[in-house]
Amino acid sequence: MGNNAHFEPPRGMRDFYPEAVAARNALFDAWTQSSRLFGFSQYDACVVESLELLKRKRGDEIVEQIYAFKDKSNRDLALRPEMTPTLARLIAARQGQLAFPLKWFAIAQCFRYERMSRGRKREHYQWNLDVVGETALAAEVEVLACAAHALRELGLGSGDYKIHINSRALLADLLTHSGVAPAFHPATFLALDKRGKQEDADTLRALKAAALDDNAIAAVFRIMGLQSLEEVRQLFGGEQPALTALQTLFQLLAEYGLGDIAWFDIGIVRGLDYYTGIVFEAFDAERQFRAIFGGGRYDNLLSDLGGAPMTAVGLGFGDVVIAELLAEKGRLVAQQTKLDYAIGYMDDSQRSAALRLAQAIRRTGQSVDVALHAEKPKQFFARAGKGAFQKAIYVGPDDVARGTVRIKNLDERTEEERSLTELLG
Amino acid sequence: MGNNAHFEPPRGMRDFYPEAVAARNALFDAWTQSSRLFGFSQYDACVVESLELLKRKRGDEIVEQIYAFKDKSNRDLALRPEMTPTLARLIAARQGQLAFPLKWFAIAQCFRYERMSRGRKREHYQWNLDVVGETALAAEVEVLACAAHALRELGLGSGDYKIHINSRALLADLLTHSGVAPAFHPATFLALDKRGKQEDADTLRALKAAALDDNAIAAVFRIMGLQSLEEVRQLFGGEQPALTALQTLFQLLAEYGLGDIAWFDIGIVRGLDYYTGIVFEAFDAERQFRAIFGGGRYDNLLSDLGGAPMTAVGLGFGDVVIAELLAEKGRLVAQQTKLDYAIGYMDDSQRSAALRLAQAIRRTGQSVDVALHAEKPKQFFARAGKGAFQKAIYVGPDDVARGTVRIKNLDERTEEERSLTELLG
Repeated sequence: MGNNAHFEPPRGMRDFYPEAVAARNALFDAWTQSSRLFGFSQYDACVVESLELLKRKRGDEIVEQIYAFKDKSNRDLALRPEMTPTLARLIAARQGQLAFPLKWFAIAQCFRYERMSRGRKREHYQWNLDVVGETALAAEVEVLACAAHALRELGLGSGDYKIHINSRALLADLLTHSGVAPAFHPATFLALDKRGKQEDADTLRALKAAALDDNAIAAVFRIMGLQSLEEVRQLFGGEQPALTALQTLFQLLAEYGLGDIAWFDIGIVRGLDYYTGIVFEAFDAERQFRAIFGGGRYDNLLSDLGGAPMTAVGLGFGDVVIAELLAEKGRLVAQQTKLDYAIGYMDDSQRSAALRLAQAIRRTGQSVDVALHAEKPKQFFARAGKGAFQKAIYVGPDDVARGTVRIKNLDERTEEERSLTELLG
Repeated sequence: MGNNAHFEPPRGMRDFYPEAVAARNALFDAWTQSSRLFGFSQYDACVVESLELLKRKRGDEIVEQIYAFKDKSNRDLALRPEMTPTLARLIAARQGQLAFPLKWFAIAQCFRYERMSRGRKREHYQWNLDVVGETALAAEVEVLACAAHALRELGLGSGDYKIHINSRALLADLLTHSGVAPAFHPATFLALDKRGKQEDADTLRALKAAALDDNAIAAVFRIMGLQSLEEVRQLFGGEQPALTALQTLFQLLAEYGLGDIAWFDIGIVRGLDYYTGIVFEAFDAERQFRAIFGGGRYDNLLSDLGGAPMTAVGLGFGDVVIAELLAEKGRLVAQQTKLDYAIGYMDDSQRSAALRLAQAIRRTGQSVDVALHAEKPKQFFARAGKGAFQKAIYVGPDDVARGTVRIKNLDERTEEERSLTELLG
C-alpha cells in the first residue's frame, strides 16, 4: 500500500492518460477516415469470444498464447488474439442475408500472452480490413491501397516503407515443382515464417524436424533465394497460374499509384495457417521494426466454421509498431486540442453569471471549462495561460454591474468587450 | 457444425454488425462531443485489471459478479466491472504531477456476470465523467449538466427524464438523528438500494437481517417517506449542513438551466459502497427502464488505494438503457452515412481508368466504392441504386475513347459529363 507498484496496470497492458489517448485517437482517426474513403463499413464484436471458435482447426503458436478462462457456468471463454475468426463467425451467421462482396473494417483490441520484449505488449489495437466474397485481385489491391492511404495520412510515404508481397499458392507450387510433396508444406511454411527472426541453422533444424529429406531441404533454400518474378519464371520454365496472378497484382498496384511501394519477396509466408493465396507484410524502409501491417487471402475460414465456402482478403494493422515508427521519425505530432474558452470568477456573487455564460457558449458548440470555485484573477490567468485554451473570460463584480465581459484571446493577446446580455442570448 | 448456434457470440455478449456500429457511434459521438464541450479530457485503460484492485475494500454484490481469471504466471486478473477503481489507480500513480481539479472522461467496456433478463447484458459500454480534487458543488453540477447536454443531443429533453438526487451524508445524518447508530448505516444503505426493485416486506427482512431493532426500522421507513427538503428540515427541526448542501446544489442546477429536470428523492442510495456525499440517478419520466445514468461524490477511494486523500464526483452512463429508451421513443435514427461515389466498369480494358478515377476522387477527400470486377451496366446500377451512394460513375469503352465520364447524381436523378483527364488531376 502506498507503493507505486500498486498503481501499475497488469503486466503487458497499457494505461492511456489524456496525452496517450490523443495520440491513439489520431491513429484511429486515420484508420477510420481511410476506411470510409475506400467504402469499408465498420463492424465490431465483444473482445470475449468462445475458446472453441478461436482454437478451431488451429494448431499453431497463437493457441498457446490465448488468454483463456471459464465463466461461472463453466463456459470456455477467451480474450480474442485476433479478429478474423470473429469476422468469419459474424459473416457465417448472416451469410444468406449479406450482399457480397462486402468490405468491412474494425478497430479491435486483441490479446496475446507473450514474453515481454521491446515493442511487445500483451494487448494491442488492430485495424482489420477485409473484403469477403471477391475472387478478383482488386480485393488485395483495395486493402493495400487503403492501408497506404492511412500511412500517408500519418505522414509516411513511399520512401518510408515497403509492402513485401508473396503468394502461398506460388510457394506451394514452387515446392511441389521442386519435389517437396504437399504433405510437407504446412510444416515448411511454419519453419519459413520464422526465418527473418532466426539463423539459417535454426531453419534447417526446423525443416529436418518436419521430416524433410536433404533434397527437399536444398530445394527450400533454393526457393528462398529467388529474388524476382523473372527468376521464378525461369525456375518453372515458363508461365504458371500463381505467377501470373502475382504479375497481375503488381500491374494493378501500379495503376493504383503504389508501384514504387510494392516489392516481391519470396520470404513472406505469414504464420497464421489460414492464408491460401497472396500474402503481404509492410516494413519500414530500414527494417528496424516488426511488420507495420500484414495479411493476405484466405479461402477456407468460412467453410471451416461450417459456413458456405467463400474467399476473403484481410489486412491487420496494429497500433504499437506504427507508434514506434512515427516516434522514430519524429512524426507523432498528435496533441490535445485546445478548448475554446476558460471562464473564471472572483467571488460567489459572480458564480451565476459565469455558469450561465458557460452554458450559453456551450450551446453555440464551443467548448468551455468553467471554474468550479471562485479564484483571484492572478490564479485564474496563470491556469488559463498554460496553452490549453484559446480564449479566457474572467468575471468580476464590475463586469456584472456594467453588464459586460472582456474576452481575452490568449494566442493573439487581444481583448474584446462584449455585452453579457447579448452573450447569454 | 453448420448449426447456427455456433455462430452466436458468447452468452450475454453483443455482436455489432455495421448498422449496430452506426447506432453505437452516434451515442459515442454524443458522449464525446458533450465531454469536449464541457472541457473533460479523455483517458482510457485496458479492460483487463488486477483482481486485487477491483476487490479492495469491497464486500458488495459487484465482487461476486466479476469475470476473474489467472494468466499463465498465475496472476489474478479480471475484466473490469466498472471504471472508477481504474481511474483512482491512474490518478494515484501520478498524483504529484497532475493539476487538480481535473475533469476526465472515458468510454469503457465493462463486464458483469449477471443473470440474463431484459436490458441486462454481461457487457456494456459506459461513459464515465469524473471531476477529481474539487470540494465545491459545482463539480456535481458540471457532470450533471454535461450528461444532460448529451441527452439533449440524443433528442431527450426535460419532459423525457428526471434526475433524482439525494445525499448519502444527509441520509446518514437523518439515520443518526433518528437513533440508528453509524455502525448500522452500511447495511441499511445496501438494503435501501434494492428498495425500488423489491417489496417493502423484503426491505424489512433485509433490515432485520442487518440487526436493526424495531425502532430503528420504523425510523428507516419514516425517513424513506420524506418527500421534500422542507420535510427534511422539519424532521431535523432546522437547518443542517448536508441539507444546506443539497439546497445549494438545486440552486446551482437552476442557474445551469436544469431546475426542471432535477428532483430531490430520498430513495436514491446507490449500491456501490464508495459514495459519501451527493448521489443521483436519472430515470425516464415514465420509470419504465432502469437508470439512464447514476453517480455521486466519493471521498475515500484514492486514500483506500494508498494515494493522498482526495474528493471526487463521478457519473456513469451505460449504452444499453439509453438505447432502449431511444428506441421506445422512436428517436434512434442513426443511419449508415452514404458513400460519395460508386464506380463501376464494363470490362477489364476500363479497369485501369476506373481504379485511377477512384484513387483521384479519394485524394479529394470523397469516399469511393470501386467495383472489384467488371460488370454489366444493369448490374452496376441495380447495386449502386440501393441508397448507399450519392453519385455513380459507370466507365464503358466509349467513355475511355472520348476521355469523358458521366457522373449520375442518384438522389437528384441528374447527370453531368466531365473530362476524365481533368478528374484524374
